[in-house]
Amino acid sequence: MTFAASVLTLYPEMFPGPLGVSLAGRALAEGKWSLDTVQIRDFATDKHRSVDDTPAGGGAGMVLRADVLAAAIDSVADERPILALTPRGAPLTQDRVRTLAQGPGAILLCGRFEGFDERIFEARAMEEVSIGDYVLSGGEMAALVLLDACVRLLPGVMGAASSGDEESFESGLLEYPHYTRPIEWEGRTIPEVLRSGDHAKIAAWRKHEAEIVTRLRRPDLWERHVGARVQPPSGARQKKDE
Amino acid sequence: MTFAASVLTLYPEMFPGPLGVSLAGRALAEGKWSLDTVQIRDFATDKHRSVDDTPAGGGAGMVLRADVLAAAIDSVADERPILALTPRGAPLTQDRVRTLAQGPGAILLCGRFEGFDERIFEARAMEEVSIGDYVLSGGEMAALVLLDACVRLLPGVMGAASSGDEESFESGLLEYPHYTRPIEWEGRTIPEVLRSGDHAKIAAWRKHEAEIVTRLRRPDLWERHVGARVQPPSGARQKKDE
Repeated sequence: MTFAASVLTLYPEMFPGPLGVSLAGRALAEGKWSLDTVQIRDFATDKHRSVDDTPAGGGAGMVLRADVLAAAIDSVADERPILALTPRGAPLTQDRVRTLAQGPGAILLCGRFEGFDERIFEARAMEEVSIGDYVLSGGEMAALVLLDACVRLLPGVMGAASSGDEESFESGLLEYPHYTRPIEWEGRTIPEVLRSGDHAKIAAWRKHEAEIVTRLRRPDLWERHVGARVQPPSGARQKKDE
Repeated sequence: MTFAASVLTLYPEMFPGPLGVSLAGRALAEGKWSLDTVQIRDFATDKHRSVDDTPAGGGAGMVLRADVLAAAIDSVADERPILALTPRGAPLTQDRVRTLAQGPGAILLCGRFEGFDERIFEARAMEEVSIGDYVLSGGEMAALVLLDACVRLLPGVMGAASSGDEESFESGLLEYPHYTRPIEWEGRTIPEVLRSGDHAKIAAWRKHEAEIVTRLRRPDLWERHVGARVQPPSGARQKKDE
């Protein structure tokens, strides 16, 4: 079964866009995944082909109509998960990406303007997903990001040499630093341990560096990593009532 | 001064891509921002035009050479901040986006393969930025996202009606739910308060809903929001040694 992506959008001309180039583009051309777009506007029912209207209760901007969105969703809905890209969604993680990549594909709903009529989320089972704590002009960029993250994990896309097992987030840590030739550059040399040929020492150094960079840069990730790995600290058993 | 973006990449054909469409595309055509790309490969020095080499110490994949990257950076470096897109970077926030959008632009360095030779970060002043806790096939998608987030905030791009002041993250909260016509759809009606015409009540309802959705979905954002707003809870003053 091939990973099949359907993108519901007002801007189908944005796809495949950057996903038609390089790794993802080659995989698309080779049929390792498929991509189709659905123009939401095709499901408007009035003569002006309206997809949006003013927000109930007043305020700036326009809101995408639930009835039009539902018709667009219903036109492609099958066993694939439906994901709406929105800053109000659950933050996308590498775990979620890996699970999606192992499934049949995804139906991606891209918002524009002020967002979606909230009733669409109650009326159609879907996940609200956010790619980060910033605001985009629409869900299309977020859909491109989500698909790129999934596609590179599909069988045969990256090749066996780069399974992704050692990269950032896969072990709950940021990745260790990389170096390559030249050995000396602008007075800076590659750390000696990496030139030692001692594989055990190199592995230990890399693990240590990954831990350091994660602790320093992302204490949130580090705490989750430590929490998942070890027993509660002894202090947790020293409550007054014991 | 116009916001000027320079993207250093091995895939210049990915740009402007989706940034050439809709809001960002119109603003680009109108000269409200500018975009140029630098092909990193043009700064290779050997006859094979190599930009990467095997990782020191062994392992999968290839690492982008510091000397080639430095030459590419030096060709465009000016007063603009230099940002390298990498999952090891500081998570991008709406605050950072807003600050960038108020500045002269950005030089964006897009990685591929296993990543950058670490020495480039010591040798050239730059920020490492991550758009989220997942892995992409390269920095290009991340650069597109970062630029889209910045461009929509540039003067005259969104229009006065949508200043973005009420959207997710601007007040440290996720946004309240939106509704629009039809008033009834699939048995679901727009909440009565939004149809009351009572602007104070509507504003209070929206604030309450924004708080609820943030607490439920993003306790991390909620804690930061509350922490920034109130004094430490009284429990903090009830230490044993008082």
